[in-house]
Amino acid sequence: MGFDSMDRKSFLGVAGGALLCTIGGKQYKVDSETDLAELSSKVAVPPKVAAAKNDPPLSKADIVGTRKEYWIQAEPVAWNPVPKHRDQMLGTSIKKTVGKTKIQAMAYRQYDANFSKPLGPATIPGPLLDATVGDTLVVHFRNALPYTVTMHPHGVFYSNEMDGSYKGYWSDPGGFVQRGRTFTYVWECPEGTQGSWFYHDHGPLDPTPLYSGLFGPLIVRDPDEPLPDREYFLGFHTFSPGLFPIKSALYSINGRAYTGNTPTMQAKVGDDVAMHVYGIDNDFHTFHIHGHRWQEPAGNVVDNKTFGPGDSFRARWIEDNPGRWLYHCHVFSHLHAGMSGWYIVE
Amino acid sequence: MGFDSMDRKSFLGVAGGALLCTIGGKQYKVDSETDLAELSSKVAVPPKVAAAKNDPPLSKADIVGTRKEYWIQAEPVAWNPVPKHRDQMLGTSIKKTVGKTKIQAMAYRQYDANFSKPLGPATIPGPLLDATVGDTLVVHFRNALPYTVTMHPHGVFYSNEMDGSYKGYWSDPGGFVQRGRTFTYVWECPEGTQGSWFYHDHGPLDPTPLYSGLFGPLIVRDPDEPLPDREYFLGFHTFSPGLFPIKSALYSINGRAYTGNTPTMQAKVGDDVAMHVYGIDNDFHTFHIHGHRWQEPAGNVVDNKTFGPGDSFRARWIEDNPGRWLYHCHVFSHLHAGMSGWYIVE
Amino acid sequence: MGFDSMDRKSFLGVAGGALLCTIGGKQYKVDSETDLAELSSKVAVPPKVAAAKNDPPLSKADIVGTRKEYWIQAEPVAWNPVPKHRDQMLGTSIKKTVGKTKIQAMAYRQYDANFSKPLGPATIPGPLLDATVGDTLVVHFRNALPYTVTMHPHGVFYSNEMDGSYKGYWSDPGGFVQRGRTFTYVWECPEGTQGSWFYHDHGPLDPTPLYSGLFGPLIVRDPDEPLPDREYFLGFHTFSPGLFPIKSALYSINGRAYTGNTPTMQAKVGDDVAMHVYGIDNDFHTFHIHGHRWQEPAGNVVDNKTFGPGDSFRARWIEDNPGRWLYHCHVFSHLHAGMSGWYIVE
Repeated sequence: MGFDSMDRKSFLGVAGGALLCTIGGKQYKVDSETDLAELSSKVAVPPKVAAAKNDPPLSKADIVGTRKEYWIQAEPVAWNPVPKHRDQMLGTSIKKTVGKTKIQAMAYRQYDANFSKPLGPATIPGPLLDATVGDTLVVHFRNALPYTVTMHPHGVFYSNEMDGSYKGYWSDPGGFVQRGRTFTYVWECPEGTQGSWFYHDHGPLDPTPLYSGLFGPLIVRDPDEPLPDREYFLGFHTFSPGLFPIKSALYSINGRAYTGNTPTMQAKVGDDVAMHVYGIDNDFHTFHIHGHRWQEPAGNVVDNKTFGPGDSFRARWIEDNPGRWLYHCHVFSHLHAGMSGWYIVE
Repeated sequence: MGFDSMDRKSFLGVAGGALLCTIGGKQYKVDSETDLAELSSKVAVPPKVAAAKNDPPLSKADIVGTRKEYWIQAEPVAWNPVPKHRDQMLGTSIKKTVGKTKIQAMAYRQYDANFSKPLGPATIPGPLLDATVGDTLVVHFRNALPYTVTMHPHGVFYSNEMDGSYKGYWSDPGGFVQRGRTFTYVWECPEGTQGSWFYHDHGPLDPTPLYSGLFGPLIVRDPDEPLPDREYFLGFHTFSPGLFPIKSALYSINGRAYTGNTPTMQAKVGDDVAMHVYGIDNDFHTFHIHGHRWQEPAGNVVDNKTFGPGDSFRARWIEDNPGRWLYHCHVFSHLHAGMSGWYIVE
Repeated sequence: MGFDSMDRKSFLGVAGGALLCTIGGKQYKVDSETDLAELSSKVAVPPKVAAAKNDPPLSKADIVGTRKEYWIQAEPVAWNPVPKHRDQMLGTSIKKTVGKTKIQAMAYRQYDANFSKPLGPATIPGPLLDATVGDTLVVHFRNALPYTVTMHPHGVFYSNEMDGSYKGYWSDPGGFVQRGRTFTYVWECPEGTQGSWFYHDHGPLDPTPLYSGLFGPLIVRDPDEPLPDREYFLGFHTFSPGLFPIKSALYSINGRAYTGNTPTMQAKVGDDVAMHVYGIDNDFHTFHIHGHRWQEPAGNVVDNKTFGPGDSFRARWIEDNPGRWLYHCHVFSHLHAGMSGWYIVE
């Protein structure tokens, strides 16, 4: 069966929160794992993928700089975006408005060397990939999901076959990691890649796996800069009623929605605090924090910053203001649908 | 009645311009003052608020630097966002498309010392809070609305109990100023807070009071910078058919919609002109002005700038171009729903 | 017939992708050229336009600096936004989801001196207006469309009567160029206007002509900066089902939608590459490119940038990464509705 079999599948994108697909001319909503596995099985295997051996050896004989090695598996996860069932900001229950919030999601999970054992539970977002300028990230990826997914990084340097993106006929093995397969990504961090970044699925089912939890933070540290005393990585995203059996969209931070469920960040006066923020849904957001402000790269000072899907940035300051503070997206309909949290300074 | 009574109320946020609320499991639209007062009365008084005396003495014995004192009352206002009933940009009447535009709104109104008399009519936005680095803003706030509201500032420094935000159980008195009550906010303006900011309600009914007019500009001036010859503060926001009896949303600047109703700004050639822009609705906007451009903090030159809810910035230039110019949001559906105005240079 | 006749026309703006208009109190969708010509004929001729001679002589006797002269005609164009009927990124046909994609659009087309002959086919976007600091752009504009349209530039300096904007009663001839008429725009490029800009219709039917293709790139080069080896101008915009007989919106780049139809950019390793990006529809977008990143004016490095309608910016780098790369808007519903393309580096 040639590549043209893919003519039968076409993503229509996301409309009104629901993901519509067309297979063989029939439109339907992707609303179950079954649908996704079915859909995935209909995507023709690209020629370069078909020709490749499973888990090809590293394509770069010489790893540049220090090798930072990760073993990461994509796997299903039973997830609760609102484990406390309450919004502490408003002091309200969200049971009536959102309904039950236990969902079947997807996660990148970190394992010990050679996937000997998990290094903790599967979480949304996935593990931090932590590099410094000069390092090379070597990410051994295993797909334990019943659909084809990938890992695609932002910010770092990588050769074309390492970009983890599905590109139709031209796809490389790293852009089409089928169920049960593995692939080793090599991502370099030369001078000029320092920054707060992230990674996410960019496979043939994009954006459904990403909307379901397949993303995580990535940082390339500047060796000339001191490490912060405290830092938090905050992914702004959405769980949609089009994909999950929830009554309304959950505007989430790090897999959780509503204050008290989203990360409760902590610091103490005098700490050098960094917050690394990225956006990874279909919406534009702002990051606002009460009682604090930070300097942008141009030198101006802000306490609120607009960012879109794929954007990432860092807010950093020396902590000088104790108390219980709110941080939130300043888009009011996002704020009141879960996109807020506590920052507690002693 | 304990704090848990608040379980009965839950904000669902803003969907399609309409504000939906749930009280006791029943969903309804907030579309009248009666609804709001009813809703407000159902919000349990947080423990720290219940324990506090009305109008507590200043929590900071020593006011840092120069004291800039304001007396501001939140009150109802009969408001007309389109008093001329016409869009001068297109030369058209808006009667058929928007209908009647007299609404019952809310405003922050400035008073003389000790609330002896108003310093002018209630307006949307509220009065400019004008500080310079080194000042401390002391804002005596009185709530003459039948619902609980607050004042929350952007950009300045304030201790935790002065942030004017409702935080559920953890709310401070300044974050829950009930009808008829007063509270004195102390907001400091140390080095590093200079900028064009704003303030707005952040109480338990957020965002309804803000959507109804409870916001205003705030500036912290840099003493090393000359004052502009002319300056304008421009709040971009929306009056929504979900909250007011209008046929379609009014995309507004400073409480008015459509060219000729929005601020007609003026300057003359040679003036050092500053425009302080902030966004305070649920949408992303751009600020575009014809015949002019300005330098961003990084040094690049723009004539159009994207900003989101909670963002604020300054455009500043030496005026060199006489004529009748349009300024507007470049989102076309906002532009054609009122978000434009004149800038006339002699 | 006086100016008040325009009372009968009122644009309601864009709702749900459809353009609704009101003429004489009757609402209808603008969905054909006939409608537009009818609508255009109902817009009263502003007094300054009525008083002006056709094609007035240049209003500036002394053209500053080097004169860069263009002859540009607005004309109808038969256009196909998806000539290959396929999305090469996903390897799928778009026939079933989008339907037929041949549309009647509008374009700015470049002609030889004095409109002696076209310099190529009419295209969306229109021709690049290419200036350097110190130049004056002299743009001879002829309207061969059956409706009133204009040319309005971003970034450059122009006197008030040269801004190409309809301003109702106060409109200048350059802001109201009727069918069959000509107008010569004079736009100056003094120090401080260097940048990546664009131009677009800003006449009385705005935004319909612009949504139909009436826009194009404009650059003011810094003479102290070397020319790039390769450069691309990328306009992000939308063809809407409200205006064209397509089944769903085409999120487009330079008049084309879906990878393989949008510009396939090319460069080779070592090239100094510039991409000039602008947004000219009703949406916010991001520009993201795989395998690359660039420095912003403030010095920070990004690989994704949010921009709104009217924004424009430049991404520039020394090419160091061969392969077949995707560039796309990171808003997933835009990406999957066509807003992506190839960048091929040898």
